[in-house]
Amino acid sequence: MTFHTRILIYLKEGVLDTQGKTVAKSLTDSGYSNLRNARVGKYIQLWIDADSREKAYEEADRMCDDLLVNELIEDYSIEVEEQ
Amino acid sequence: MTFHTRILIYLKEGVLDTQGKTVAKSLTDSGYSNLRNARVGKYIQLWIDADSREKAYEEADRMCDDLLVNELIEDYSIEVEEQ
Repeated sequence: MTFHTRILIYLKEGVLDTQGKTVAKSLTDSGYSNLRNARVGKYIQLWIDADSREKAYEEADRMCDDLLVNELIEDYSIEVEEQ
Repeated sequence: MTFHTRILIYLKEGVLDTQGKTVAKSLTDSGYSNLRNARVGKYIQLWIDADSREKAYEEADRMCDDLLVNELIEDYSIEVEEQ
């Protein structure tokens, strides 16, 4: 079975988010004065062959640990849905 | 009230995703042979002052149209939660 996993990767609280600051400034400069804050992260979709949803989750989690996430400065969350 | 909006921005189907291809190649080269495909997008969090969830959604949608999304090649989805 192929599972569609959706991974959100975002900077930990307290880590300076220069991209987010730039987005927030652009938006407030464009007149969106009701914007309080913006933070920019990554959205990675993976399609993984696995026997079960749990296995697909574990596999995605390992990929995050190994390669996708810099755990020093980033946090992440994973959602798995059957394809 | 401040609403936390989570925006997912991803390339439209059919648009070549070079970043996704690179991620997929790195992962399969690292031994993850059960990976079928990978696509990379953006995850933007906005904190917006608004009178209601609907107003916050509309405001986020306008920001996407104006500045955050290139609708020629990208699609997006918005989720709003009360802060």
